[in-house]
Amino acid sequence: MIHNKLLIAGSIILNLVFTIHILYNNTTTWSPTWTNRAALEAEAAASVSCSGHGRSYVDGLGVLDGHKPCECHDCYTGKDCSVLLKDCPVDANSGDPLFLEPFWIRKAEESAVVESGWHRMSYTFNGYGLFVSAELEKIIRKLHNVVGNAVTDNRFIIFGAGATQLLAASVHALSQTNSLSPSRLVTSVPYYNLYKQQADFFNSTNLKFEGDASAWKRSERNDDITQVIEIVTSPNNPDGKLKRAVLDGPNVKYIHDYAYYWPYFSPITRQADEDLSLFSLSKTTGHAGSRFGWALVKEKAVYEKMKVYISLSSMGVSRDTQLRALQLLKVVVGDGGNEIFNFGYGTVKKRWETLNKIFSMSTRFSLQTIKPEYCNYFKKVREFTPSYAWVKCERPEDTNCYEIFRAAKITGRNGNVFGSEERFVRLSLIRSQDDFDQLIAMLKKFVSKAAVVVDSI
Amino acid sequence: MIHNKLLIAGSIILNLVFTIHILYNNTTTWSPTWTNRAALEAEAAASVSCSGHGRSYVDGLGVLDGHKPCECHDCYTGKDCSVLLKDCPVDANSGDPLFLEPFWIRKAEESAVVESGWHRMSYTFNGYGLFVSAELEKIIRKLHNVVGNAVTDNRFIIFGAGATQLLAASVHALSQTNSLSPSRLVTSVPYYNLYKQQADFFNSTNLKFEGDASAWKRSERNDDITQVIEIVTSPNNPDGKLKRAVLDGPNVKYIHDYAYYWPYFSPITRQADEDLSLFSLSKTTGHAGSRFGWALVKEKAVYEKMKVYISLSSMGVSRDTQLRALQLLKVVVGDGGNEIFNFGYGTVKKRWETLNKIFSMSTRFSLQTIKPEYCNYFKKVREFTPSYAWVKCERPEDTNCYEIFRAAKITGRNGNVFGSEERFVRLSLIRSQDDFDQLIAMLKKFVSKAAVVVDSI
Repeated sequence: MIHNKLLIAGSIILNLVFTIHILYNNTTTWSPTWTNRAALEAEAAASVSCSGHGRSYVDGLGVLDGHKPCECHDCYTGKDCSVLLKDCPVDANSGDPLFLEPFWIRKAEESAVVESGWHRMSYTFNGYGLFVSAELEKIIRKLHNVVGNAVTDNRFIIFGAGATQLLAASVHALSQTNSLSPSRLVTSVPYYNLYKQQADFFNSTNLKFEGDASAWKRSERNDDITQVIEIVTSPNNPDGKLKRAVLDGPNVKYIHDYAYYWPYFSPITRQADEDLSLFSLSKTTGHAGSRFGWALVKEKAVYEKMKVYISLSSMGVSRDTQLRALQLLKVVVGDGGNEIFNFGYGTVKKRWETLNKIFSMSTRFSLQTIKPEYCNYFKKVREFTPSYAWVKCERPEDTNCYEIFRAAKITGRNGNVFGSEERFVRLSLIRSQDDFDQLIAMLKKFVSKAAVVVDSI
Repeated sequence: MIHNKLLIAGSIILNLVFTIHILYNNTTTWSPTWTNRAALEAEAAASVSCSGHGRSYVDGLGVLDGHKPCECHDCYTGKDCSVLLKDCPVDANSGDPLFLEPFWIRKAEESAVVESGWHRMSYTFNGYGLFVSAELEKIIRKLHNVVGNAVTDNRFIIFGAGATQLLAASVHALSQTNSLSPSRLVTSVPYYNLYKQQADFFNSTNLKFEGDASAWKRSERNDDITQVIEIVTSPNNPDGKLKRAVLDGPNVKYIHDYAYYWPYFSPITRQADEDLSLFSLSKTTGHAGSRFGWALVKEKAVYEKMKVYISLSSMGVSRDTQLRALQLLKVVVGDGGNEIFNFGYGTVKKRWETLNKIFSMSTRFSLQTIKPEYCNYFKKVREFTPSYAWVKCERPEDTNCYEIFRAAKITGRNGNVFGSEERFVRLSLIRSQDDFDQLIAMLKKFVSKAAVVVDSI
């Protein structure tokens, strides 16, 4: 009897447990409906491991044929990217900001976006600016406020397909029309090559690229009449230094390229407060592929001209991208930038420590040095940790530094691309950890060998 | 005892039922993990009804402050867009392709996309073209194959931020450099104004807009030497007619703007097989806001030049947009285009029937007429159902048709914007159903009143 009673009691308790379980599940778990398929697809792609040396994307090669392939990092191969190729050349060329990818993987839940099939099909945002998400504009202002890297009061904000498109729009807006003589575009050597490339390629009647600002200042053409546009890149690409304008005068207009003015790369020494400043999502959150940037513009007339440029060249920035950028910046701003900037700065700082250790063994090569400064964001004096190493080949016979590194299987970017000497080469330090690890492995062999050679002479 | 046994048996059976229920649930229901938050957010926004006269978006005005507001269609107001404003002016200006929105709402599950925070952060697509999704290119070829509107064999495909950016890229690629005389850009009146606007605004040394192709043909400047680029828009914007090139000669290059060459608007009479053809997602799926288009290019040299243009102006198209376009086109192509083209054609056809009925009462206004043709897609002879009504004011004194409609609270686009006479006005027929319904309501009052006046004279 006791046995039976126990059995009944046990069974009833179990029934109660089950009942509670089901009730609990029904009330607290939300069952997605139309988002289910897409969510399942995204999670399936994300669950492919690729050995940590690659990634599987929902729009990866072969998905239309039902494959879920790994796209391997450089130098890794095999179906699951587990095979490291021997003696594989290292890519240290472009500033692909993959160093922030681990942050976003960690923030999977907070940063994901579901876009419905009918999301913002229209050309315009209802009730606000033509091609611009009001919320995105709002959060960009908040971001600058939180980081303290730029004044946004009394500034118009304009969106573009990366700083790339905004640069073209700015130069166009500032160059004079209906003049016999074109506006002259100058910047400081070493400079980001796109400035020259765009000016040459788009070949506007109203603009001519003239190269180095200091050279222009010294030249006899530096009068108070010729219209000049000076681009100030701060921190500078390639060398990471904070810069100020070289020219002055009533005939000079300025574009400040602040793409790299974030705590990852530089102390935040002051709030930028310029007429026209450019920023890029690529170097803010690491999303180069999204092609999103913004400009802070003081003058209404310049803002209007830039808007016409963006409108006539692409009718604004993809609304899909604006939706995503909003979500990403929500995550960044959520904790005042604390987590992402600490993560990103920590990563780049560690990379610089590794790099400095290697180059300190060498007299053949030198790196740029910049004195630490007080950072208003981190509230302390800190090192500069630029996104690129600007390497100089010190031996007289090493006239082409790019080729010397290339022979050692490291592809950087030639100094002459930046209007500088071939004695310099730029190495990117913000790529994926795999790329950086391979760079270090190659450099160790190469630089230390060079050090030995030097020492033995 | 029997009572007890029954109790035990019942309880055990119930336990079994519960166990099966839980096991079944665990094996067939998938519980989303990191996609949950985003899915919940998207479904919450979608569930706001806005009375059918507006929409709530995840990035809508005020979301950062926790609101989930309705963005109301033109002429609707109130918190839930339920109030129709009296005597509200009708917007029939831009070609906002919202007529396809109901299709995508119907296809909610199939068309949704989840984008992870780490999705394609890089500038490049690994293992394929620099800035281009291989799968998206593949499905675009499939789409043309299914619709039969363009040959894609032996064609390069290049992506741009809408046909807008590709147009600028094409013109740039085809205009001659290093020449004393700029290339001349011509097209046929009435023409899409962007052709002129871009050429004037970008003000390239290598290009000059010259207006009407036929006028150029008749002029003495039509020699075999001056380099000419002719843009052929087919179906034409604004009037919807199929067009062929006007000029010929060894000095003429062509850009075919096929943005409207889809079964919604025109019979598919032949496979386009040109040197350089432009298409736009805006008029393919209705996603104008995504800023996505593509060009089919025959010559490698032209393709390469266009790639440089896209690269220098925006470093390719947003990867977020490419991901979404892939999903949308998957839905379109899935059933050979059957559902979307029938839905879209059905909608525009019905709108034309309504419109024709109204205008048939009038001698004051006339509409363009185009003879039906055999459509290779629908496999039958069918009417043209252009995206725009190209309205002519027939009375001698009605010299400005745009102003006459504006006075009747209908905003179209002035004929002179298309290089044509002010006696014409373009009315958009592909906007939201609300916009169309309002247009019809206004037209009924206006045109029938005009008809009465005419009849009474």
